[in-house]
Amino acid sequence: MLGARGGWRALRRCASLPRAVRLRVREALGAREAAAAVRVQGWVRSVRSQKEVLFLHINDGSSLESLQVVADPSLEKKDLTFGSAVEVQGKLVKSPHRMQNMELQAETIRVVGPCDIWSFPLKMKERHPLEYVRQFPHLRCRNNTLGALLRIRSEATAGIHSFFQDNGYVHIHTPIITSNDCEGAGELFQIETSREAKESAEKTHFFNVPAFLTVSGQLHLEVMAGAFTHVFTFGPTFRAENSQSRRHLAEFYMVEAELSFTESLQDIMQVMEDLFKTVTSTVLSKCPRDVELFHKYVAPSQKGRLEQILKKKFMIISYSEAVEILKQAAQTFTFKPEWGCDLQTEHEKYLVKHCGEVPVFVVNYPYDLKPFYMRDNEDGPQHTVAAVDLLVPGVGELCGGSLREERLPFLESRLQRLGLTDTYQWYLDLRKFGSVPHGGFGMGFERYLQYILGVDNIKDVIPFPRFPHSCLL
Amino acid sequence: MLGARGGWRALRRCASLPRAVRLRVREALGAREAAAAVRVQGWVRSVRSQKEVLFLHINDGSSLESLQVVADPSLEKKDLTFGSAVEVQGKLVKSPHRMQNMELQAETIRVVGPCDIWSFPLKMKERHPLEYVRQFPHLRCRNNTLGALLRIRSEATAGIHSFFQDNGYVHIHTPIITSNDCEGAGELFQIETSREAKESAEKTHFFNVPAFLTVSGQLHLEVMAGAFTHVFTFGPTFRAENSQSRRHLAEFYMVEAELSFTESLQDIMQVMEDLFKTVTSTVLSKCPRDVELFHKYVAPSQKGRLEQILKKKFMIISYSEAVEILKQAAQTFTFKPEWGCDLQTEHEKYLVKHCGEVPVFVVNYPYDLKPFYMRDNEDGPQHTVAAVDLLVPGVGELCGGSLREERLPFLESRLQRLGLTDTYQWYLDLRKFGSVPHGGFGMGFERYLQYILGVDNIKDVIPFPRFPHSCLL
Repeated sequence: MLGARGGWRALRRCASLPRAVRLRVREALGAREAAAAVRVQGWVRSVRSQKEVLFLHINDGSSLESLQVVADPSLEKKDLTFGSAVEVQGKLVKSPHRMQNMELQAETIRVVGPCDIWSFPLKMKERHPLEYVRQFPHLRCRNNTLGALLRIRSEATAGIHSFFQDNGYVHIHTPIITSNDCEGAGELFQIETSREAKESAEKTHFFNVPAFLTVSGQLHLEVMAGAFTHVFTFGPTFRAENSQSRRHLAEFYMVEAELSFTESLQDIMQVMEDLFKTVTSTVLSKCPRDVELFHKYVAPSQKGRLEQILKKKFMIISYSEAVEILKQAAQTFTFKPEWGCDLQTEHEKYLVKHCGEVPVFVVNYPYDLKPFYMRDNEDGPQHTVAAVDLLVPGVGELCGGSLREERLPFLESRLQRLGLTDTYQWYLDLRKFGSVPHGGFGMGFERYLQYILGVDNIKDVIPFPRFPHSCLL
Repeated sequence: MLGARGGWRALRRCASLPRAVRLRVREALGAREAAAAVRVQGWVRSVRSQKEVLFLHINDGSSLESLQVVADPSLEKKDLTFGSAVEVQGKLVKSPHRMQNMELQAETIRVVGPCDIWSFPLKMKERHPLEYVRQFPHLRCRNNTLGALLRIRSEATAGIHSFFQDNGYVHIHTPIITSNDCEGAGELFQIETSREAKESAEKTHFFNVPAFLTVSGQLHLEVMAGAFTHVFTFGPTFRAENSQSRRHLAEFYMVEAELSFTESLQDIMQVMEDLFKTVTSTVLSKCPRDVELFHKYVAPSQKGRLEQILKKKFMIISYSEAVEILKQAAQTFTFKPEWGCDLQTEHEKYLVKHCGEVPVFVVNYPYDLKPFYMRDNEDGPQHTVAAVDLLVPGVGELCGGSLREERLPFLESRLQRLGLTDTYQWYLDLRKFGSVPHGGFGMGFERYLQYILGVDNIKDVIPFPRFPHSCLL
């Protein structure tokens, strides 16, 4: 038995020479003072060989900026190319250049992994369009833009968790495999064991009942909102709809929250707005250079807009007002705006523009348009429910929410009319045992990223795009 | 148009009387000083009516402890029962009782939602066994034990995110729908659109190729480890195996990490151990009362053990040593221990016991037992790979990891022998463009919770149990 850790440490120490302090590129760039023995590992982003000196830029994904390495030309090797993985040891010193704080004076350069540059689809110093790199789902993360996106996505994820934790919400992992479809959220994916999939005869089900991939964790969160007053989930959701568009994904992430003892849509909208602003501010302060890249090369006008939006209150209009605005519009729409009909993308775009290209809450939608769980406003003749959508420029619907119907008789009669009483017996049950007014919302995470970064195609804000290339599916 | 938020605020102000400060139970219990006008909302956990005074305990899920409400008996109502939802307004004062800091002297009590106590499966002041509440997946979160579990699960989730973020890891949402099975991790769930599922004839696939639910994000993380040196994911994974056991789930959560420029298993084990200890310390300090409940009523001996474990280094033995220990054991095993065979649960149990009921790393497993991506130790005649499993008392395998084979020729010949070259062309590709030594691991999140809390059945550490009741599936 090797016993505890000590034995291994000793072994390792014998196996290699004493080594310099290992620093990430981000740490090296941010260092306050020079250091004599530093080791940096990463991938070569550029090689520039001059008569007197060899310049490298090394990136390890810890920041958008690469670390400049200055070396004697004698250290140049054949396989020290763009894309190769290297370990550089040397002195970290103040850089004479205004654009960078520190640089590394190399003493040794070791090529850890060479790169076959002829078949490598990314080229040195080229700004590849997003559509180009999307063809290489397993390599595009080595591109600056996608690297920046993934760091932003990671910070936004952390920011969402912190927002809810700081506000006393309990995080719930709602089921991915479920039997409910949250009533009409979209086309479902069904699951079965691979053995069942092969059988064409009468099927048995692994879970005894047909099982689907979740379209929303809302109903499960509502269960939890009967024990914890504030709950949230942040996980994958699925729609088996045409994902070849620039606005839809078959698999995407959703942030969802439910709040008990909530009597007003206002409370729900306040959380939506706070969430948006807090997470966006976090991202802007944690990844300024990464965001800058998008606001410089991808969506040049987005920066100023976003700063404005963070300062102002979001607008609120009612559905009925929205329809009036649309009816009075000079523009002709493909779908004629009419009270009682869904707002189409063209309508949403117009409304957002009408309001000055800022986020707009639209509240109180027609009763007959919405699922059974939305709270009846009892406001006939134009009968509405307490639902809210948040529309944003360029993206359309970013969030959707509502007060939920907490009154047993209302829910019973509505489910009966829809023939869903048996399916939702458990949901009715929740209203028998200490039911409270509550409400909640969901925010599409990819649409959020699309909006703040000004990214046109939703496939450019996910780690692994699917269509048309599915090698990594 | 109602314009900005102000209009709504004003509306709401008119609609109701000015209200007292709303406090969560946790906040009320932790208050430093008395407060004149406080409002608390939650569910009644006990009602005790005496001649002179009415005592209530109110819980809102923000803590295990309930807030004691003291009221005049005239405030008692027929529907003020166990399980009902109430809003209590009054004075928050120092409690005369030693066991609690503050109590609420009620001025008004409003029953927000009554509870049909005759059909409510949870009973006042009863300590229901876990098996009993498991029958009510939509109500069991209102039980003390499950409430505590879900708060712990939420804190552990946050702790895992923080651990990786604090250590410079980039979070990646690896795909849930995938075409790879990570080579033999287990039986797969296949997915198709509900329309396809109904057709018995030749099938077309939504994604052009058969698509499955992920069993591990490892291969996708490895892609990312070619751009960021430290990456992690924490999401659902799936196995279509018999989940009726107390150790397996069809849907469970896994924490996975990959580290580039890693040349020793030791580095991987260090991260596993740090992760375990950091997250456990966080949970113990953030939810002391919740953890105490488990260590008092569910697994009485677990508390002292856990404290010991956090202080000591984890043990390390090699697979070959493990087999020797098993061969020399006085115990007879159902499966005879033999070099080259998998360790069975009975073996793992014995090894953990042999080492003193502490977590044990087992390293360097037989080459032929492990998937293609594990790094060849080139150490014949007993040929091994640089794999590691972390075994813990009561649960068995908690984590599994390895160095990954970064050398293209090794990988090419191994994939060719297995007939997998075409399937993993993209994976081979990664080794052509700056391949670096790397490794990673996965930790089962539910098993982690089972272990630290001493919970026997894995279904008691998930929010929604499936078997045998699937109403919420």
